[in-house]
Amino acid sequence: MRDLLPQQVRIRESATEKILSVYRRYGFVRIETPALESLSILTRSDGGENEKLIFKVLKRGEKLESAGVEDLADLGLRFDLTVPLVRYYANNHGKLPNPLRAIQIGPVWRAERPQKGRYRQFTQCDIDVIGLASHLAEVELIRATADALLALDLSDLVIRINDRRILTALTRASGFPDHASASVLISLDKADRIGDAGVQKELSEQGHSAGSIDKLFWLLERLKTKAENAGGQARWGDLRVDETVVRALTEVIEAVQTDAGHRYQIRFDPTLVRGMGYYTGQIFEISSAGYSSSVAGGGRYDDMVGRFLGRPVPACGFSIGFERIASLLEERAGAARDTSDKTVVLVEAGTPQLERALEEARERRSRGEIVVIEPRDPKKSLGKQIYELAQQDFGAGTLYDAAGRCVDVTSELRGKRAPSAKLITE
Amino acid sequence: MRDLLPQQVRIRESATEKILSVYRRYGFVRIETPALESLSILTRSDGGENEKLIFKVLKRGEKLESAGVEDLADLGLRFDLTVPLVRYYANNHGKLPNPLRAIQIGPVWRAERPQKGRYRQFTQCDIDVIGLASHLAEVELIRATADALLALDLSDLVIRINDRRILTALTRASGFPDHASASVLISLDKADRIGDAGVQKELSEQGHSAGSIDKLFWLLERLKTKAENAGGQARWGDLRVDETVVRALTEVIEAVQTDAGHRYQIRFDPTLVRGMGYYTGQIFEISSAGYSSSVAGGGRYDDMVGRFLGRPVPACGFSIGFERIASLLEERAGAARDTSDKTVVLVEAGTPQLERALEEARERRSRGEIVVIEPRDPKKSLGKQIYELAQQDFGAGTLYDAAGRCVDVTSELRGKRAPSAKLITE
Repeated sequence: MRDLLPQQVRIRESATEKILSVYRRYGFVRIETPALESLSILTRSDGGENEKLIFKVLKRGEKLESAGVEDLADLGLRFDLTVPLVRYYANNHGKLPNPLRAIQIGPVWRAERPQKGRYRQFTQCDIDVIGLASHLAEVELIRATADALLALDLSDLVIRINDRRILTALTRASGFPDHASASVLISLDKADRIGDAGVQKELSEQGHSAGSIDKLFWLLERLKTKAENAGGQARWGDLRVDETVVRALTEVIEAVQTDAGHRYQIRFDPTLVRGMGYYTGQIFEISSAGYSSSVAGGGRYDDMVGRFLGRPVPACGFSIGFERIASLLEERAGAARDTSDKTVVLVEAGTPQLERALEEARERRSRGEIVVIEPRDPKKSLGKQIYELAQQDFGAGTLYDAAGRCVDVTSELRGKRAPSAKLITE
Repeated sequence: MRDLLPQQVRIRESATEKILSVYRRYGFVRIETPALESLSILTRSDGGENEKLIFKVLKRGEKLESAGVEDLADLGLRFDLTVPLVRYYANNHGKLPNPLRAIQIGPVWRAERPQKGRYRQFTQCDIDVIGLASHLAEVELIRATADALLALDLSDLVIRINDRRILTALTRASGFPDHASASVLISLDKADRIGDAGVQKELSEQGHSAGSIDKLFWLLERLKTKAENAGGQARWGDLRVDETVVRALTEVIEAVQTDAGHRYQIRFDPTLVRGMGYYTGQIFEISSAGYSSSVAGGGRYDDMVGRFLGRPVPACGFSIGFERIASLLEERAGAARDTSDKTVVLVEAGTPQLERALEEARERRSRGEIVVIEPRDPKKSLGKQIYELAQQDFGAGTLYDAAGRCVDVTSELRGKRAPSAKLITE
């Protein structure tokens, strides 16, 4: 965990405002859930590895005294924003628009080993559509997220899209046993980092047959070609997928690409897997120039709300890697100094000059200016104090002294030089 | 803990923006600290009762296995923003402006018994000046906070101000034993709720002598009169306070009142105590019409940074009761419907009309409009679907149908009536 310095908070606030501004125009509305959820809720999802990283909160008072060793905690800090969203929807759906288009921006916590670029508290930035089975949800989530990334000046955006149901059919048609499907997909997901050969090596080391591995890669090649359609199924050899799955994927890709023009690209990538176990349909990621991994990812998770609400509700979401983008924006800001129009009003001790200084400050602030009032430090020469203030990038300054004078010290501040003898002795 | 619905988040965002806009003009900058702090940090302050309300986080992995029953937790959720600020300043002061004028808005957690209007996670909104011994810090904190409350349309603001050093002298001069000073002040603090007679009764029940109690109230009356000054001390009978304390208090009151004009009032209140043990100098609260207790409170705490940094650093802060104000703003918003300029674009399934709908949405959004695209639900009549959408306060609407038509349904939405036969059959 870490502290954020003022310039870091400013960069994050500005990024958040840009993202929110885009998402609001798409009709998304911001919601908030508490940081703490019941452990029974947090462990009811397919959060996978993340569930092992929950910060657990000790029971309080009597409850703790009567607790066994295995039963010391009852609450946990949320490890993502999806599980809380689903719980939120189940609790509040009667008071929410239908479908719900939700924005969530907030901290999540994971008890990871501290390492460079990984934090145990970090910000997630999600949009989700709950209650819409149409793939219009996917189209709008993708467009909104791409627009938000463009608003942050990210360039060369490429969206990769796939469908979990194609992946399931793929491992099955390749002859992998069903129980191995998840681990095969985890290996396949690494294709963009370790290459096809790397994936083949990994699968082979896991003891899978050369026949299945070869067939998997042969089918991946075939998937780049047009499917035959027969009997409601799209077929690539003996890889068969429900035709509606392929049609929806095609429509999403076409609708997004037509609308995107030259601003960004979208393409089908049958090796895209995404880690989380809860996805049920289309899945997508966005990459950008200068980032080795994706800057946003999401997908459809139609089964998850039902687990909390008891009746099926379609759901789909897209999450921006906020921390990664904040790091880039910090680097970009780097050397750029703060050029905001700040004024310093220096005032020597005493009521008459304080009142005049407050008046100047009030007038300037009422015009929207940033004004800091500093007491004149009698232990420092005026030159030294102004020099130190100049380091804080004030664009203007006034001195109210005990003799009733009001002196403009703007040029001394800007020149970052000691005040002239005239100013000091006047 | 609780969920926030979209309209609640919107009200809070708007309040936060107004407050931040005022604070920034006073030269304050926003900082952020993590939600979790070491328990050893959280229990090192004079947090008093709040320290008992810490949500403690269970140790992870091996650390937990080797922990004794008394030693199960190492982290805790922050219970206020002041302790983390002081720790933050101690860790980061080399990278921060001096003095630091910090804004913090964020959640804090207290394991209180759930009850109406009390939440276990709630938002605090603090400004603090660290590194400024001058009472200019108090003047600016009070003005900034009052301005922020005015920006939120709170009315009849009254600021009460006192100094801890006057309170200490007061209990001593009244003849209370030093060890009882804190409990006497806790009773005195209730004067505005239970009246003088109530305080007298409570002190008497605690076993204090009638002589001390009478003298306390006699001195409180005397404090309303002008002090005699002798030998560097301000004197009211045998109540003696360092003259600089009284002079600073007078200057703050005069400077604030002169600048406030008729916008708000400030007055000395010798019965103002404020609970937290860490205050060392001036303390202040703001009340507003319609609130039984204060809407903001703060004071100087010059000893606290030194406890973390090892050298004394002056500090002073003012905290707005954000939750209380958010409740009021929610009540005010109450019946007021959302009148934002939202458009709904209804689209029947199919690529051509989807592309046209996306184009309309993109154009409108590029002009800053809020546009929601909804799939036409074939299971509902058009009239029913439009009626349901009308409940969501859309100001305009378009329908793209499978026959390639584009129909303006704005009047149907606004009239909240079923579309005309013409529209349906056309």
